[in-house]
Order: sequence, then structure tokens, then C-alpha cells
Amino acid sequence: MERTGEGVCAPKGFSATGVACGLKAHGRRDLALIVSKRESSAAALFTTNLVCGAPISVSRQHITGGVARAIVVNAGCANACTGARGVADAERMCSLVAFGLNCPPQQVLVASTGVIGRPLPMDRIERGIEAALAEVSKDGGAAAADAIITTDTFPKTVKRVLSVGGHTVTIGGMAKGAGMIAPRLATMLAFITTDALLAPEDARALLRNAAETSFNRLTIDGDTSTSDMLTLLANGESGAPALKPGTDGYARFAEQLTDACRELAKMIARDGEGATKFITVHVSGAPSNEDAHLAARTVAESPLVKTAFFGGDPNWGRIAAALGRSGVFFDPGRLTIRVDDLLLFENGMPAAFPLAAAEEKFREKVIAIHADLGNGNGEAEVYTCDLSYEYVRINAEYTT
Amino acid sequence: MERTGEGVCAPKGFSATGVACGLKAHGRRDLALIVSKRESSAAALFTTNLVCGAPISVSRQHITGGVARAIVVNAGCANACTGARGVADAERMCSLVAFGLNCPPQQVLVASTGVIGRPLPMDRIERGIEAALAEVSKDGGAAAADAIITTDTFPKTVKRVLSVGGHTVTIGGMAKGAGMIAPRLATMLAFITTDALLAPEDARALLRNAAETSFNRLTIDGDTSTSDMLTLLANGESGAPALKPGTDGYARFAEQLTDACRELAKMIARDGEGATKFITVHVSGAPSNEDAHLAARTVAESPLVKTAFFGGDPNWGRIAAALGRSGVFFDPGRLTIRVDDLLLFENGMPAAFPLAAAEEKFREKVIAIHADLGNGNGEAEVYTCDLSYEYVRINAEYTT
Repeated sequence: MERTGEGVCAPKGFSATGVACGLKAHGRRDLALIVSKRESSAAALFTTNLVCGAPISVSRQHITGGVARAIVVNAGCANACTGARGVADAERMCSLVAFGLNCPPQQVLVASTGVIGRPLPMDRIERGIEAALAEVSKDGGAAAADAIITTDTFPKTVKRVLSVGGHTVTIGGMAKGAGMIAPRLATMLAFITTDALLAPEDARALLRNAAETSFNRLTIDGDTSTSDMLTLLANGESGAPALKPGTDGYARFAEQLTDACRELAKMIARDGEGATKFITVHVSGAPSNEDAHLAARTVAESPLVKTAFFGGDPNWGRIAAALGRSGVFFDPGRLTIRVDDLLLFENGMPAAFPLAAAEEKFREKVIAIHADLGNGNGEAEVYTCDLSYEYVRINAEYTT
Repeated sequence: MERTGEGVCAPKGFSATGVACGLKAHGRRDLALIVSKRESSAAALFTTNLVCGAPISVSRQHITGGVARAIVVNAGCANACTGARGVADAERMCSLVAFGLNCPPQQVLVASTGVIGRPLPMDRIERGIEAALAEVSKDGGAAAADAIITTDTFPKTVKRVLSVGGHTVTIGGMAKGAGMIAPRLATMLAFITTDALLAPEDARALLRNAAETSFNRLTIDGDTSTSDMLTLLANGESGAPALKPGTDGYARFAEQLTDACRELAKMIARDGEGATKFITVHVSGAPSNEDAHLAARTVAESPLVKTAFFGGDPNWGRIAAALGRSGVFFDPGRLTIRVDDLLLFENGMPAAFPLAAAEEKFREKVIAIHADLGNGNGEAEVYTCDLSYEYVRINAEYTT
């Protein structure tokens, strides 16, 4: 029986690796390859940023076939704002992998992350792809997850298992995040694999649905990247029957897929650039779920809210101010705000809480903000982190 | 002949003062009073934040009469999120001033800035208003400007003079800014006075028009405050005939008023919390002026763009990325970006510039970003500053 691997290698029939080809400093791994032993149903979501990287353009075209064998990813250079040369370089990355695997280039997806506006050093990339093709194995999941990170402080992998018709179906995944994170339809980079058997159109529907309450509920700094990409490869190696919409197995798979995506999204928030705290913003009582999402996102992206939590300063008025400017309608006289279980503001008036209790809540490492707008049944949750000196340092020195 | 004073005391018939009543630490001035010797035509713009301070509610009601004698302002406590008690306190501030001036309370406007969610210490405020009423004079413009600041590092005053029908017409003004600055229809606090004779409806039209290309083009951190207020008092003391729409004098007054507002807005950007640089983001080639404004604002509020300038790191790709996520449509292949006169990106391709030249530009203290979207004639300019360690420090420690 096939061993189970880590992250994207957890499902049957997937192998991977991460190698160092000289894009990152200090000989760190910077090129990852994920390979399915057979053609997989493939779905992907991409950044909605108009200024998108060349790999986005190329992968967006390749995914139209609904089938993929491999994904090649480099970190250290985003290959964005690089014009026609960038597109040719991204195409060449796919062709080199396809040649090694003896498949059409259209069955290879490509992703890049790193500095915008610089061309890829293709000689290094070519040597890296050659090495990755030689090394790819069931044991390479951790190395692949390590290769795709940039300012992340830890690699992010996930695994979920369910039983379908007596067969074990596995979902594996990896992601990178850290900065320029405010995904709209995808996230920086996240790759999900599964040995479930799925039609390409079902893979697309499942992925879109899972992203909606996971990666699309995540913001580090409000800066939607040029390079966001989220993929799902399903190779059917589990032996389980095809998962069809409307069946119990499909519903359970959807639940596990969403859960896996949400775990990766939360890891990205926890590891946001310079983050010292993980913050969940939960808004209820909004006119609609979309309104609740907008209100929660406005709080999550407020630099004043984020710096208050960094400083452990119980300046809860900033939460009220952010909600008030969010564009969502409510009556401030019905607004209620809690941090964890501590009531701070109730129906438009400060609650009677001891300042020391509020200070303690704002100093926690894991924080849940709850705001009830008192104007409907809409509800949503957004994941974020605080804004620290370290975020400023990292981004003031990024390219130099 | 009446002496000319500073800031709001520059026009004839206006006096002011700033006193210390114990809201700020270290005995700093924290209560300002502006008085017109006669009834002035009055116009005001307020924050669009749903969660607004009690002074906003009260002043919004008082301004409906179109006439004002005085404005009372305190710093150190925003009197926001304070419920019915806050409204009663704001009303009482107006009544105390009205009693001293022997005018109806409806002719007094009130503004507050500072921490949200704490009640005003009314005993201190009352003593402060008493002292201010006794001290108000032609020489108090500088003290008033000093009293309204919070984390600002310098007071902000402005003066413009024009001649109308042989009479000298003067415009004076003062403002405070620093943080929670992303005015929508007004700014944190700005007060303009003039001795021109204006009908209240003309004062409103002139003020709205001036704000559109000055305070409404300013952002420090994207956090629209609960307490934004911009006022114009016109008392007619210049002796010049009434300025009527369609006349040459009206047009020249509008130009000077806009110019004065823009100078205050630029001062606020230059003095943003923790700011080390003043940045103008100019976008052209957009489908409309509104689109250009949205694109420029997205760049100006991007934490990644702001930290890159703080660090002097020529990471211009972040400007392209912010434009691409702004929601304004354009073809990235026609996008051109300059910083000052240095071309960085042209028609979708990096320009051939020496890295050292770009580094030098990003290290300047006054920076102009020019982006041409190549998709129309829309154009707009937004004023902002960089994002530094000091912004994080100030806001991590604000209330404690």
C-alpha cells in the first residue's frame, strides 16, 4: 500500500519536492513541484487584480482544459509586470516540466511569488526544474511547502481524511501567505490535492465554495496580490467512486475541503508579516451575510484597530469607528461590541467593565472580536492579525 | 483699523483663544473658542461615519439655521460612543458659550477630538469655557490652533487675501489631523473664517466645492473618523459687497478658499502620525475623475506602498499592484508609472532605469507618484504620507 506523505503528498498518487535554485538568499529552497501520477481533474481560482503575474495568465489558459498533471511554483520572484518576456518564461517553465513528465504543457500549471517587476533568471529556474523532476517523491511534501514561502515564518500544510463507499479519501494541501494578502477569489498561493474522483466542473464548484468562507475571509493588509492562486487537483487514486453533487459523500467532501482551506487561511493570518496576534472578527446582526463580511473586513483592515491590539491598548472605540465607516447601514444605538466574552459597548453605550479586564483581553495572543449591528440576520467571520513594528520593518526593506 | 490676527483671526471681526482645562496631559491647551463679533453665514460638512460623535449630532442640527456666532472645540476626548449623556454634554457646551455671548445656543457649533468612548469631564470643560470666554481676542488665533491638535506635531493655520470691489477680503483657517484621517465630506477638524459677505446657501456650495479637491483628497490611514468636521463662517466684516454666484469676485473667492483648504489638507498629510514623507499620488488616463480618485486613493492607502517609501525601498511593483486591485478598469499593457520625473514602468514593461536612481527617488522627503492608466481623460490627486514605526508606536499606546 502507498505510504501517506505530508501536505500535498497526503493523498494517493501525488508526489512533490522543493529544491534550491538560487532565487532566495542563503541557499533556501525556492522551487516546488507537485506531480500527480495520472491526469487529475483540475480547478483553480486566481487573483482578481488587473495587474496580474505572467503565471496567472498562463495558468488561467491551461486550466480551461480541466485536467492537470503537475504544478511548478517558484518563490523569490513574482514574474509580474514583466510583459511578453514574462509570459514566455512562464510558458517555458510549463514546457520543461511537461517534457520531463511526457505530457502536454497545457497539463502543467505554474505559479510564482516574490518581488514584482523583475524578470525570472531562467538559467537558474531551468536547473531547478531539472533537479525537481529528478527528486520528486512521496516524501517531498514538506520540502515543497518550505520552497513556496517568502516572508512566512513557518511552512503551512494540511490534511483531511474521510471515508467514501468504504474507501479512504484524503485531502492534502499547502499554502504560503505573510504579506500582500487580501485574497479576492483566491489567496497568495495555496495548492490542494485529493485522491477523490471528481469531474472537473465539480472540482471547480467545490473549490469556489470552499474559498468563499476560508481564503476569501482572510486579510493581512488589504493589498490583494498580483499572484494569488488556489488550485485543486483530484486524481481519483483513492479507488472511491466519483463524488457527484447531491450525494452524501459529496457533501462530506465539501465540508472537509472547506475545513482544510479554512485551516490554511487561519495559518496564513497567524503568520501574517510581523503578526504577534491572531484575530477573528465576527459580525452578526447585519442586513445580509455580504454586509456582515464587508463590516468585518473593514474592522480587520483598520490600521488603528490592528495597532491597538498590537499594543494591548483597549481602545475599543476604534472598532465602533471602523464599523461606522464600513458602508453597512445600522443604528449605532443598537450596536454591541464584545472582545472574547467581555462586553465593551451595548446598545450605543459603553458597558460597565473594569479597565484592567479590557486591558487583559487586548493583551491576549488569540482574540475574537464580536460585533452585533442589531439590524438583521447577516453574519460573517474574517481572519486577520495585528499590525506591528515588524510589519513595517519587513516591508520597508523588502527588495533591498 | 482692526489688526489682522493669525489663522481664524485673520479676517476682520473674528477673535479666538485656546486654553488648558485639563483634558490633555502636561497642562497643554485643549479647548479652543472662535467668536465672530456678529452673526455669520455658516456652513459645515461632517463625517459620513454612521458612528459619529455627539458634537456632530448637535452641530448638524445647529447648522440648519445657516447662522453662527461661535465654535467651541475640545481636544483629548472625542465625546463619541457616549449615548444620550454625550449629546447633553455637547448641548451644554453650546449653551455655556451662548450664555457668555448672549446669543441663542443654536448659533454655537461644537466639535471634539480625542479618545472615543469616554464621557467628557464636564467640570473641567465648564471651567475651560469660562476662561476662554474671558480671554478670547484678536491675538488668540495661534493658541486656538494649538488647542485643537492631538498627535499633530505642529499647529496648522492658513490665510488668503483677495480684493473685491476695492475691499480687502480675507480667509483664515486652522485644522488638526494626524490619525484616523480619511475624510469623506470633511476632515478631522478644520475651521475656516472669512470677512466676506456670503449668503448661507452660497457658503455651503463654496465649502462643499473646496472640500472636494482638498480634504476629500487626503488620507493618512483610511480610517474615517467619528468626529470629522469642516466649517466656514462668513461675517461680512470686510465691507465688500455680497459675493454672488456667477460674479468674478465669487469665482476668485472660490479659488482662494479651495487653495486655503488644500494647503491645510497638505499640512495634515505632511504631519500624519509618524510621517517622515509627504506623498502626492497623481493618477491620469482613467475613465473618469472619480475613477482616478479611487485608483489614487488605493495607492495612497496601501500599507505596502507606504512602508516601501518609509524604507526608501524602490519596490515600485507595489504601486502597480495597488492600481490593479483598485476596482478601476484599465489594460496593464498601457500602464505607465513615474516617481517624480523618473520613468519606472512604461506600457506594461519595466523601464530601463538605474536602480540607484530609483533608490534615490524613494529616499526623498517629498514624493510625487504619477500613474497613467492609458484609458481615458480622468485625473485626480490624493495627498498622503508614509507608514513608519512611529505610526505603530503612537497607535499601539494611544489610550494607555
